[in-house]
Amino acid sequence: MARIEVRRNILEANENLALRNRNFFDANEVLVVNVMAAPGAGKTSTILRTIEYLGDRYAFAVIEGDMASRIDADVMAAKGIPVEQINTGNMCHLDANMIGRAAGTFTYGRPTILFIENVGNLVCPSEFSLGEDLNIVIASTTEGHDKPYKYPAIYLKADAVLINKTDLMEAMEFDRKMFCDGVAAVKPMPPLFEISCRDGSGLDAWVGWLTGQCERKFGREARKLAER
Amino acid sequence: MARIEVRRNILEANENLALRNRNFFDANEVLVVNVMAAPGAGKTSTILRTIEYLGDRYAFAVIEGDMASRIDADVMAAKGIPVEQINTGNMCHLDANMIGRAAGTFTYGRPTILFIENVGNLVCPSEFSLGEDLNIVIASTTEGHDKPYKYPAIYLKADAVLINKTDLMEAMEFDRKMFCDGVAAVKPMPPLFEISCRDGSGLDAWVGWLTGQCERKFGREARKLAER
Repeated sequence: MARIEVRRNILEANENLALRNRNFFDANEVLVVNVMAAPGAGKTSTILRTIEYLGDRYAFAVIEGDMASRIDADVMAAKGIPVEQINTGNMCHLDANMIGRAAGTFTYGRPTILFIENVGNLVCPSEFSLGEDLNIVIASTTEGHDKPYKYPAIYLKADAVLINKTDLMEAMEFDRKMFCDGVAAVKPMPPLFEISCRDGSGLDAWVGWLTGQCERKFGREARKLAER
Repeated sequence: MARIEVRRNILEANENLALRNRNFFDANEVLVVNVMAAPGAGKTSTILRTIEYLGDRYAFAVIEGDMASRIDADVMAAKGIPVEQINTGNMCHLDANMIGRAAGTFTYGRPTILFIENVGNLVCPSEFSLGEDLNIVIASTTEGHDKPYKYPAIYLKADAVLINKTDLMEAMEFDRKMFCDGVAAVKPMPPLFEISCRDGSGLDAWVGWLTGQCERKFGREARKLAER
C-alpha cells in the first residue's frame, strides 16, 4: 500500500518537473529528443550520425545517462559536441529532476536539438517524462525481432522507431514483419526508420523526419536563420 | 525520505522470501541459476543449449521472466522442458515472491537444475535475490565491450560471465581486453566463458564449470544416480 502511494507520488512529482523542463526548453527554442533503447542498440552512434548529418543546420547538445562511467560523454566531447554526463548510480532511468539540472548548464544556440541518451533499458525509462518533445526507441537487428512483444511499454511511448544495424539484418534473420506486428499490437504504427550507423544507410529518411519535427516546433524561419 | 524507507523495506522483505526459496530449493535438491543479461543477449538460447548439452544428466526446469508475452516459455515447452512464464507487467525484474510461487508448481526430479531467465535488463535484476545458487551474466559481442563500465552493479553480482555471439566477435570489433578490464574493475575476475549459441563453440568449458557447481551442491553420488 505504502509502495503504491510512494510510486504515485514519485511519478506525480516527476510530471511536474517535466512540465517545468518543457517550459524552459520551449522558451529557449530547444527541441528535446529522448532516445531510449536496450544496452548496445546504438543510441550513441545514432545521435552522432544524426548530428553529423545535420551539420550546422541547428545547434546541438547531448545529455548522456549511464549508471556509471563517462565513456559516451567523452565520445561526444571529442567531436566538439556540448555534452553533460549524468551518472544515475543504482537508478535505472533518467528523471525530470536530473534533466532539469543538466539542461541548465548549456548555453543554447537558437534553435537547438538536445538529445537525451537515456539509460540503456527497455523497461524503466518509459515511465518517466523528462520534458521531451519526442520519444525515440532504437531497436537493433542483433537483439532480435521479438522485443516489442516483451517490452510493450517502451514501444507504447515511441513517437518514432528506428531499427539499427540493418547491415546485419539478413545474417541475424531479423523478421521485419514480426517486429512491426509487435509494435502495431501496442499502438498505431509510428514512423519506422531502418538505419545502419555502420554504413550510414537509411539516415536520410530519419533525418528528414526529424527536420520536419524541428520545423514544426521552430517554424521554417528559425531553420533559415540558423543556416545563415 | 519515505522513498528510501519503502525501498529498504521492499529489499528486506525480498531477502526474507529469497531465504525461504533457498531452503525450499535445498530441500528439493535444486540448483538454481539466475540468468541476467540485456535484451537479446541470448539468455534463452544459452539455457536451451546448456540443457541440450547436459542431456539427461540432470532434471531441468525453467522460469521465464518477461514484462509481457509467453514467447520464451513456448520455445521451452516445445522442447519438452518444464517451464513457467512470469509476466511482470510494469516491473523491471523478478523478485523472490514471484519465484516462490512459480517454483512451487514444478515436480522436481532429483537433482534438478532450475534456470531462471530474468527480465532482460542490466540494472534492476541485480538488486533482488531470488534464492538462487548462482548468478550468471551473459554479455553479447553485438552489444559492445563497454557494458561492465556502464552497468557495474550487475557484473558485481556475477558468479560467472559468459560472452555470447563470439562468432561475431571479429566483425563487431569486440575488444575482449577492454571488456575484461571493466569486469575486473568491479570485482576479482569471475570465471569467464566465451560461447556461441549459434555454432555451439565454447559450450564445453561453460557446461563443465556448471557441472562442477552441481557436484559441489549435490555431491558426485547424486550425479551418478541421475545418470542411471
